[in-house]
Amino acid sequence: MASLSGNAVVGQSGGPTAVINQSLVGVVEGLRAGLMKSGAVKQVFGMRHGVNGLVKGNLVDLSQVPQDKLSAIAETPSAALGSSRDKPDPEYCDRILKACQEKGFRYFFYIGGNDSSDTCRIVNEMARKAGYELRCIHVPKTVDNDLPINDHTPGYPSAARFVATAFRADSLDNRSLPGIKINIVMGRHAGFLTAAAALARLREDDGPHLVYVPEIAFDTERFIGDVDRVYTKLGRCHIAVSEGIEDSQKRAIATTLIKNIEKDSHGNVQLSGSGALGDALADLLKDRLTKLKGLAKPPRVRADTFGYLQRCWPDASPIDKREAREAGRYAAQLAAEGAADGSVAIIRASSAPYTSSYKRIELKDVAAQTKHMPNEFLSGHCDVSPAFIEYARPLVGELPQVAWL
Amino acid sequence: MASLSGNAVVGQSGGPTAVINQSLVGVVEGLRAGLMKSGAVKQVFGMRHGVNGLVKGNLVDLSQVPQDKLSAIAETPSAALGSSRDKPDPEYCDRILKACQEKGFRYFFYIGGNDSSDTCRIVNEMARKAGYELRCIHVPKTVDNDLPINDHTPGYPSAARFVATAFRADSLDNRSLPGIKINIVMGRHAGFLTAAAALARLREDDGPHLVYVPEIAFDTERFIGDVDRVYTKLGRCHIAVSEGIEDSQKRAIATTLIKNIEKDSHGNVQLSGSGALGDALADLLKDRLTKLKGLAKPPRVRADTFGYLQRCWPDASPIDKREAREAGRYAAQLAAEGAADGSVAIIRASSAPYTSSYKRIELKDVAAQTKHMPNEFLSGHCDVSPAFIEYARPLVGELPQVAWL
Repeated sequence: MASLSGNAVVGQSGGPTAVINQSLVGVVEGLRAGLMKSGAVKQVFGMRHGVNGLVKGNLVDLSQVPQDKLSAIAETPSAALGSSRDKPDPEYCDRILKACQEKGFRYFFYIGGNDSSDTCRIVNEMARKAGYELRCIHVPKTVDNDLPINDHTPGYPSAARFVATAFRADSLDNRSLPGIKINIVMGRHAGFLTAAAALARLREDDGPHLVYVPEIAFDTERFIGDVDRVYTKLGRCHIAVSEGIEDSQKRAIATTLIKNIEKDSHGNVQLSGSGALGDALADLLKDRLTKLKGLAKPPRVRADTFGYLQRCWPDASPIDKREAREAGRYAAQLAAEGAADGSVAIIRASSAPYTSSYKRIELKDVAAQTKHMPNEFLSGHCDVSPAFIEYARPLVGELPQVAWL
Repeated sequence: MASLSGNAVVGQSGGPTAVINQSLVGVVEGLRAGLMKSGAVKQVFGMRHGVNGLVKGNLVDLSQVPQDKLSAIAETPSAALGSSRDKPDPEYCDRILKACQEKGFRYFFYIGGNDSSDTCRIVNEMARKAGYELRCIHVPKTVDNDLPINDHTPGYPSAARFVATAFRADSLDNRSLPGIKINIVMGRHAGFLTAAAALARLREDDGPHLVYVPEIAFDTERFIGDVDRVYTKLGRCHIAVSEGIEDSQKRAIATTLIKNIEKDSHGNVQLSGSGALGDALADLLKDRLTKLKGLAKPPRVRADTFGYLQRCWPDASPIDKREAREAGRYAAQLAAEGAADGSVAIIRASSAPYTSSYKRIELKDVAAQTKHMPNEFLSGHCDVSPAFIEYARPLVGELPQVAWL
């Protein structure tokens, strides 16, 4: 069977990661090894800033980029093509389809998270209705690790590596100058990234001592009690808090504690790029613990919000680099094998030694879906389980070794 | 001349750094190679949490710690002995002296910044007055890089390496999803660490586009104009702001923008461990730029506060590791050579190739003094000069390489 002839276009979408360029380069390499080699695809273009660049004709020809340049770009964090937060509605998707028709694009690769797979799905359906043969393949990416079916998603292991490294180092800092320290970690609805803080622990009394994820309703009174218990016992308390923690009514704690919080165009509360949640929790602890313990002055409470460094830190996990690259190549291979559409999923084959494989899944099964931490990854209301540690440890790679007297 | 006989005690003080343990290990190694070898010093003890551990008898015997353990501790960030924020008054210093007399300590090594050198100075003077022979040697440490005479201080190169790496990566993130991004960097009175953000730049339009240090009075109106100019030109703006920026009346901007700000026991405003300054500047820009440009909704403005990760990130600068270790050894060597007191200073011999040496300076010349960025390191009111880049580049070591399309 002769492959569908036409050009290919690839884009990056959503929050960038340390390895999203690995996937971009993987797609280009996969095309060169398959559809471009066979002649079905003559050129591959990159969309500048996702579908926004596609509809505006802001494209870059990737066909002739030398391999050594591609390899260097793969090692560079963030989105080399530029990314986009546009969430296309049907009218926008129609413009995407028209742009593909005008340019003769027959292969559409989109690297991103839930929203990006949904864009793929809509464009794919519109193309079918319009009778325009277009292969729409989604390549997974998200530091939140919240795509279904996938064992984990490219970007998560590197962000988890940053979080675990940061907690290991900051736990030593907290031990050195004791006090209560809150670190706010990314993750709007899924706690996987916050949970990775637990990988930092080496000793029984190492931080984080408390881990709060969005999957478990956050109760401020219980939180104050947790901190008091640890602080009374150890004289310090090291805390991992997901930016997305919610109360039992599913209201973001950020909105219940902070006045004048910003909402984005999708109505989402602005969680990242602000230290407000950490500061609000720190103020709460200072106030309440002072009263609870009858202290003359508030205890030392500090809050750091790890922010965008989590997704762009240039020390990616070795497994993440490899898998993100291979996921991109696999997407191109799926297209070469005649897949009309689909998303790439990472499947874990074994944990020790860690091995994984890739498979095609339906766009509808990943589009706009959110995976949460399963119960077996949690322990009580403020810790993770050994099963989570076993799951996450191989992904992040070797962490910095530390020693103590 | 026979050396003074007695035991030695060493402590770590102030904010920990990625290399403060190098200096601790250096002191122990220096003693083993000199005064312990000659038999003048039988034992060396570590103070738990600085002079607090000394006066409370919370000490750890470091005499028999094996070399491989010492080497591993040297590579571990933060203060292995624990640190302290205690700022001893004469009464406290008297207790320090008494503790030394009781334990028979004749050699007092203290690793820290301005306050720690002042503790050394006071204890030294009290010992003289009391007729108790005590060698008080200060080993420099501070990420702020604000000790006089020193070309730079151990801890600064590693923190600067973190800041430069973070800005290089975050600048790509800002390019990928354009907007206005503020990053708050440590440095209460000196801008050296914030200035290190400029080392991130590779291209003409790379961030940081604006750099604000405490040495230049911060004018909020001028700041809004600066951001508007860059944002209008590039469609994004990447900004480095020192936590210690002050207005023309020397009031911390943090205090003028933030209500209910916390002050510590020395009357210092709490700058670190809070995202409040970044958030206040972000809110200011959202509000004012919306009005200035007549926008329907505020521009995308985000703020990250790098926080304690700056001082504990486990990827120290190679030069910093070596110098921090050697400074500790040199302190022990000074004591072996009969120096009654003093502080170790790092002197740069040449920049290309980078070489440095160590010399003894008077405690009074470093104690409670603050070095600021010299004028030749600044360019205009919101940038650093090529002279600063030349100064700082060799210190931080090689930064992650990045590539672009």
